[in-house]
Amino acid sequence: MTVRQEVPFDDTLGTLGEAAVLARIFPRLPHAAAALLGPGDDAAVIAAPDGRFVVTTDMMIHGPDFRMAWSSPHDLGWKAAASNLADVAAMGAVPSALVVAIAAPSTSSVTLLEGIADGFRLACAALSPGCGVVGGDLSVSPTLTLAVTAFGDLEGRAPVLRSGARPGDVVAVSGALGAAGAGLRMLFDRALDAAGHPDAARARALRAREPELMAAQFTPSPPIADGKAAALAGATAMLDLSDGLALDARRLAAASGVCVDLHSAALGPDVRAALAGGEDHSLLAAFPAAIALPAGFRAIGAVRVGDGLSVDGQLYTGGGWDPFSGWDNADG
Amino acid sequence: MTVRQEVPFDDTLGTLGEAAVLARIFPRLPHAAAALLGPGDDAAVIAAPDGRFVVTTDMMIHGPDFRMAWSSPHDLGWKAAASNLADVAAMGAVPSALVVAIAAPSTSSVTLLEGIADGFRLACAALSPGCGVVGGDLSVSPTLTLAVTAFGDLEGRAPVLRSGARPGDVVAVSGALGAAGAGLRMLFDRALDAAGHPDAARARALRAREPELMAAQFTPSPPIADGKAAALAGATAMLDLSDGLALDARRLAAASGVCVDLHSAALGPDVRAALAGGEDHSLLAAFPAAIALPAGFRAIGAVRVGDGLSVDGQLYTGGGWDPFSGWDNADG
Repeated sequence: MTVRQEVPFDDTLGTLGEAAVLARIFPRLPHAAAALLGPGDDAAVIAAPDGRFVVTTDMMIHGPDFRMAWSSPHDLGWKAAASNLADVAAMGAVPSALVVAIAAPSTSSVTLLEGIADGFRLACAALSPGCGVVGGDLSVSPTLTLAVTAFGDLEGRAPVLRSGARPGDVVAVSGALGAAGAGLRMLFDRALDAAGHPDAARARALRAREPELMAAQFTPSPPIADGKAAALAGATAMLDLSDGLALDARRLAAASGVCVDLHSAALGPDVRAALAGGEDHSLLAAFPAAIALPAGFRAIGAVRVGDGLSVDGQLYTGGGWDPFSGWDNADG
Repeated sequence: MTVRQEVPFDDTLGTLGEAAVLARIFPRLPHAAAALLGPGDDAAVIAAPDGRFVVTTDMMIHGPDFRMAWSSPHDLGWKAAASNLADVAAMGAVPSALVVAIAAPSTSSVTLLEGIADGFRLACAALSPGCGVVGGDLSVSPTLTLAVTAFGDLEGRAPVLRSGARPGDVVAVSGALGAAGAGLRMLFDRALDAAGHPDAARARALRAREPELMAAQFTPSPPIADGKAAALAGATAMLDLSDGLALDARRLAAASGVCVDLHSAALGPDVRAALAGGEDHSLLAAFPAAIALPAGFRAIGAVRVGDGLSVDGQLYTGGGWDPFSGWDNADG
């Protein structure tokens, strides 16, 4: 398995060596306001002003998580940043910093890593200004892999867990439902070549025709600041929609010991797509019925006594994405 | 590329699915005293009592970093924990918590992940009691990959950087020099089969004959508590020896703007092995000459005006390990 070269005859990781590659990447990484000591020593030192910090980690793997013919290096960095920032936001925290470990084939062009660094910088600037990359690790691997760990500051608030939803609460969402999954389905429908492999030219054409669905899949913009807003408004429970509304709503219901009942009329024209589609990284939260929803959130259901997920009062058993059984072993 | 099954016909990650795999792993992971909220939500919450935290991240990749015929799953977890804990210790900090992202082929036995979890638990208990795993991520990948991020508490002290060594300081080390590298060389000399592939039976025989060198390579025991001891004693600079004494001493010299001069008589019987061997994860530090070295440290040289690395006053240009050019693309 090899990573497509962005620039023919460009420097590769193997010919440049680690120190030279790092020198090319560091200037492109976003600075973190919370970094008391940034990259270059054995470890970084990050400010944790309230005496605690929030931490989450997530990997992106060539094959199960992305195709090089469809995603640019920039897209990979953007999406890795966005998905981890959303997990921090789902605790009601403000993202402070990221560390990024990247493993790539030694034959990869250094422009691959430069593009990934650009994606991290632009995603942080757009989604969570002030958050930046404070450290990382470069390794060689046959499989391009990004492992991101993100940190956040609770600013003195209690974290918003999955387990606090109570019967009578309103269920609300901030962000898209099903758009990233619809974009992925469209790519598999229209951006494969005759042999069934991911095709770069067809993906480019699809991006021009369907910019919103493609952006939802390649460069998602989860509502990071709405995590803090939900916490301040009094959200009783919250999580990040990474594996699809159905599966993640069921997780919130199970953790809280309640039933989540969604209103199909609030889920858009394609209810099944809204329920099944993964990777939206929108925020699903429960709020006491008496309070006004914070800007960005819209009501999509209610918390009831019981368990599991229902739609319009009927038990819903449709699923979402499982990382160990949802991949067909293809890459490209 | 497939991961060797530990138990024939055992459950695999693909057949069990993510939730069932996590249920098998969680009970084996070490608890962190600093965890205010552990695994199971979008993110964990960790105590950072002095208002800062130290963070480092490091990957281990099947092929460049380990062979499945030589390392047990337990060894992989142990080594991933130990190498990250050493980076925290090298700042003068006390390790508080780890997050662990693992990507494995879907055909892997769940016992692979259980063994890795056991290695993390036993390494934390032996090397840094109270430190534990507070969260993680499971993914599917053709290449078994462990990405660890480790956190530490500075307990109100300034971090010990690489850049503080001053001419006249004593250069000292705590831990082995060259043992892990000698163990690896011995494996490549004596634990390959006739076709040149890693051989499990020969590696087992070598472990019985050379338990110390094999332990240095497979289950290193870096002196984690000596990082705090060095900071308390007044170390002016410190780093973790991951890529070999020569390369890492040169890094300390460059960051501090000094020359590090090592005394060959203090480097053991095989001076070249002590200088070149990587993966010891010992702590290299500089101390003002007037102070008594803390227990665990032994003097191996002195800081002088100048730059680079010398041995007995002679410029030394021998190298160490580069992750992008040191791997031959083999695995097994």
